[in-house]
Amino acid sequence: PISASRLWDSLMEMATIGPGTQGGSRRLALTDEDRAGRDRFVAWCQQAGCTISVDQVGNVFARRAGRDNSLPPVVMGSHLDTQPTGGRFDGVYGVLAGLEVLRSLNDHGITTLHPLELAVWTNEEGSRFSPPMMGSGVLTGVFTLDEILDAVAQDGARLGDELKRIGYAGTASATDHPMAAYLEAHIEQGPVLEVEGYQIGVVSGAQGQRWFEVTVTGQEAHAGPTPMRLRRDALVAAARMVDALHHLGHRIGGDACTTVGILDVEPHSRNVIPGKVWFTVDLRHPDDAVLATMEAEFRKLVADCAAGCGCTASIAPFWDFPATPFAPALVACVEDTARAFGFSQRRIVSGAGHDAVYIARKVPTAMVFIPCIGGISHNEAEDINLDDAARGAAVLYRTVLATADG
Amino acid sequence: PISASRLWDSLMEMATIGPGTQGGSRRLALTDEDRAGRDRFVAWCQQAGCTISVDQVGNVFARRAGRDNSLPPVVMGSHLDTQPTGGRFDGVYGVLAGLEVLRSLNDHGITTLHPLELAVWTNEEGSRFSPPMMGSGVLTGVFTLDEILDAVAQDGARLGDELKRIGYAGTASATDHPMAAYLEAHIEQGPVLEVEGYQIGVVSGAQGQRWFEVTVTGQEAHAGPTPMRLRRDALVAAARMVDALHHLGHRIGGDACTTVGILDVEPHSRNVIPGKVWFTVDLRHPDDAVLATMEAEFRKLVADCAAGCGCTASIAPFWDFPATPFAPALVACVEDTARAFGFSQRRIVSGAGHDAVYIARKVPTAMVFIPCIGGISHNEAEDINLDDAARGAAVLYRTVLATADG
Ligand SMILES: NC(=O)NCCC(=O)O
Ligand SMILES: NC(=O)NCCC(=O)O
Repeated sequence: PISASRLWDSLMEMATIGPGTQGGSRRLALTDEDRAGRDRFVAWCQQAGCTISVDQVGNVFARRAGRDNSLPPVVMGSHLDTQPTGGRFDGVYGVLAGLEVLRSLNDHGITTLHPLELAVWTNEEGSRFSPPMMGSGVLTGVFTLDEILDAVAQDGARLGDELKRIGYAGTASATDHPMAAYLEAHIEQGPVLEVEGYQIGVVSGAQGQRWFEVTVTGQEAHAGPTPMRLRRDALVAAARMVDALHHLGHRIGGDACTTVGILDVEPHSRNVIPGKVWFTVDLRHPDDAVLATMEAEFRKLVADCAAGCGCTASIAPFWDFPATPFAPALVACVEDTARAFGFSQRRIVSGAGHDAVYIARKVPTAMVFIPCIGGISHNEAEDINLDDAARGAAVLYRTVLATADG
Repeated sequence: PISASRLWDSLMEMATIGPGTQGGSRRLALTDEDRAGRDRFVAWCQQAGCTISVDQVGNVFARRAGRDNSLPPVVMGSHLDTQPTGGRFDGVYGVLAGLEVLRSLNDHGITTLHPLELAVWTNEEGSRFSPPMMGSGVLTGVFTLDEILDAVAQDGARLGDELKRIGYAGTASATDHPMAAYLEAHIEQGPVLEVEGYQIGVVSGAQGQRWFEVTVTGQEAHAGPTPMRLRRDALVAAARMVDALHHLGHRIGGDACTTVGILDVEPHSRNVIPGKVWFTVDLRHPDDAVLATMEAEFRKLVADCAAGCGCTASIAPFWDFPATPFAPALVACVEDTARAFGFSQRRIVSGAGHDAVYIARKVPTAMVFIPCIGGISHNEAEDINLDDAARGAAVLYRTVLATADG
């Protein structure tokens, strides 16, 4: 029911905006590149006959009228921001698969009962500004608008100022946005579908996440005349924590994930024993009870490694969400649709957070996954097959029709 | 023979220039603070009747005429630049002890046979610009003037441009500077003199150093949907290297030192498995054969840790100097002087590099160490006792007299 080549052309055109140096994308949230990506999206949606609104946190909604516009819209969406060295499909695929649904409805001359909306959420990645999923988080009351507008980037910029600077500080309410249902297509970002040979992932929910910040304090001292036995080296302590965290992830096994993505050393001088190290921790598991165990073990290993090096360490919780199930009826609808097309499919738990995770707190929500090559994401080498892209958009199309006409 | 209170007042006055936030100093090489420190030094030396010259690499020389000015000068010196979070005495003590010698000679109406010079060397610390000891290194032909003028700082500035900006790009030859002898007073920067209860360290030489840069390459991937067993985490590999290097230092024992002072992670995002880590390595030992063994073991552990994480690693040598003995006769002169004063003293090998290490390649050289409290240096908490400061300056005074009049 959709045009695979049109979808692919749009994906490739978006990838020309904020290109990375290794074939991927660099459209960090609320930079000039993000603005250019949003502008292209808005132009495409207007050409497709949609009206555009922007809310106070910069979420963009393209609206296609239904037969009864007093009904809340069925909403599709994802994000256009990327990691610093991100892929061309993470987020972008969901937005442009949604656009392909709207264009195809136009081709077929179909007007749904409910109006439809296609959303681009602000700062899903959580890289330049952290945590992730800020736009959808404000919309669902997880964050207040004010705290998000005051968020400060790694580069020192304030989110509210950056929204104004790029022209996406909208006036629509960021908190009062009725929806009948929410559907998001996304690349899997992991290896399961590809390795097991499935064409579609029917996402039953997302695993829980707990993020932390750890500060290790030792003693700055001279790298030469300070004997090894007298050192209180904050980097050695932090290094042992990084290694022990990695072992923890392995030991828990299954879907457990433990990651240190950022680690900063002070005073950052070649001949000074580091006196302070600051690093981030990302713990994930589909079972909240296991996640709690992981947190307890993480706290213990940090204390042990610090003590073993004569250092102290403090842990600050940064962000978390529990394992989040999606709406069973809507998940079943995705499954039925994929089956009706004859696509091979399996249920899957999302390893990543998505805007859908926050929206699911308020609105019946489901997601459609497509495989990504080698399971690689958050990497410029991220890639997908055109046929998979087309299958995902087709499932999205039929699920939206079933939901918006029911 | 010297004034302890005048020396102390000058130390405290210099510490008001570029103060740190924790009671120490922040006068990074060729910053505005370094300029202000140099300006104060120049004013003091002019008040003491010296003439000033600045060479092409920014080394400053304050000259006091002798009875025979055709003879090469006996030179004292050290540095005024500091680490990012440095102490008030590292380098500064040697410069101002030298100034106190000149002032005391004035007080006593003494003119030495040889002229005297007091040198402030450019970028001894090697923190903002690296490696260390650049000014003395150009003077002794270790580095070419051009490569040093082209050195780029952590903050992106070019050394030659910074010299001009702060008004210390001089015209005197940076390579042709005759000296009869070189004497440098310095704080020990380690715990030996204090722990063993000695007042003066008679420095017999400096241990060797080998510095390296290590780049670890893994694979960027998503912190959520990427199973632990498929990860090639460059930070986990680097963490194991940091820990193994620390163990190597302990295992070699004695004076062996192994330090990682800088470690940078890419892409520096909380939810991306690091694909690249870059870090610095500083290996030290008084015996070059042991240092060679340490390098070999370091190379092996880097390869092993990389392989264990599915990563690759490359090692680039950055800077090194071999164990460097000072001039036996001059070292004996320092020892005799300290003994004549009745100061308790021992021979000691410097754990740190000093400008004296490069000067020693061309000119008879010796150093005088004084204790520093708790052995702490390269830390804002660095501290010394006034009595120790006075003793060191007195030894410098008598050694200079013995050398410049002989
Ligand atoms: N999809 C995605 O990469 N989301 C970012 C939040 C996360 O790290 O799970
Ligand atoms: N004295 C001193 O801190 N020198 C810097 C060079 C080194 O790290 O040894």
